[in-house]
Amino acid sequence: MTTQQLSPTPRTTPTRGRNRQVEDRRQLMALLSDALVAHLGVVAGGHPVVLPTAFAVDAAGPDDGGSLYLHGSVAAGWLAPALEQDICVTVTELDGLVLARTGFHHSMNYRSAVVIGRPRQVTDLEERRRALDLVVDHMMPGRAATLPPATRKELAATAVIALPLAEASMKQRTGGASLEPGDLDLTGWAGLVPVRRVASAPVTEDYVSDPVPELVLRRAAELGQA
Amino acid sequence: MTTQQLSPTPRTTPTRGRNRQVEDRRQLMALLSDALVAHLGVVAGGHPVVLPTAFAVDAAGPDDGGSLYLHGSVAAGWLAPALEQDICVTVTELDGLVLARTGFHHSMNYRSAVVIGRPRQVTDLEERRRALDLVVDHMMPGRAATLPPATRKELAATAVIALPLAEASMKQRTGGASLEPGDLDLTGWAGLVPVRRVASAPVTEDYVSDPVPELVLRRAAELGQA
Repeated sequence: MTTQQLSPTPRTTPTRGRNRQVEDRRQLMALLSDALVAHLGVVAGGHPVVLPTAFAVDAAGPDDGGSLYLHGSVAAGWLAPALEQDICVTVTELDGLVLARTGFHHSMNYRSAVVIGRPRQVTDLEERRRALDLVVDHMMPGRAATLPPATRKELAATAVIALPLAEASMKQRTGGASLEPGDLDLTGWAGLVPVRRVASAPVTEDYVSDPVPELVLRRAAELGQA
Repeated sequence: MTTQQLSPTPRTTPTRGRNRQVEDRRQLMALLSDALVAHLGVVAGGHPVVLPTAFAVDAAGPDDGGSLYLHGSVAAGWLAPALEQDICVTVTELDGLVLARTGFHHSMNYRSAVVIGRPRQVTDLEERRRALDLVVDHMMPGRAATLPPATRKELAATAVIALPLAEASMKQRTGGASLEPGDLDLTGWAGLVPVRRVASAPVTEDYVSDPVPELVLRRAAELGQA
């Protein structure tokens, strides 16, 4: 990573909730590491389209600020438009429901990163293999090394794009309900309902006789096995 | 709701993974009911911006197909552009990590709805109050009725927009790892790690002496208290 300090440009500077803006690049990288799904925004057919997608991050990748990798079918409708424009990738984790004494101050605790930039199609074979391994490892750390290498046919069917992490901003809300002076005169309960993602026990496919790998058990436990 | 059948237009018809397309409008409404966060896509400054946001749905709302409500500060940067263009609202829930014998078939189980349309600014006072109550109740069913009504000042600070649910599509992936004929010749574990969102025990604010309301306890339990 180029710097510990996030340097949002005017277009990644939040217009609202500036007090929720996070300046520490380590927190951005931690969020990108925690989250499993990104939402990709592209303009296609004259209107925005937002699609959920897996992703991976290489802080030492060749793009300015590090590389955020997305992959998809070479036939995906979003791919060609995405390569001809700036795109936006947003990653959000929900951390809690915030219940105040007024509806106005009801809120959610969350962490959200917004990355804007011109994507680069990854054509170098080694980088493509590495990016696809990173996408697998993002979901299940250590998994890629246990799998056979991607075949030529698989690689031919899969497009990989890289987005520079240079132009990124992060917002975060933590804590309990915001309190207006007048709220103390109100009655009623106020508080926080923390939420988080958990995994339940891995389910083995019928055709598999191998035991559940240690790294899968560990990941499920890390995600807070319910 | 106008129909049980989803009728995607060309721009909401997925170009890939058509086998994952969901045709039943009840499943769309169930996903919109389950999810807590939407991702709003607008074009602002010549590029797409994707922002996480709370939302609510009124299946019997005045818009074609029912109404999806978003709210925000009247000073939010996305608001003015959003009212002059078609926007996209995407709602995604992650249900599992799918681990195959090949990297290529690694995937995630998810449900995702994509709604595209021209938003309408909600100006009618009654509808605005109702929409804001629905946003609170979406997060915490039954909560709005226990709160004081929004003040004029709060209403003046809050914009509400409605998106018709007419042009919506939904995709879903369920089940275990996809199996290519050749995968049976491979070795190694394959399976599913189910994931879901859970709540932990509500945390009461220091200044509150009331007990945690029954509806908050019920909601936390419904979300699968960990």
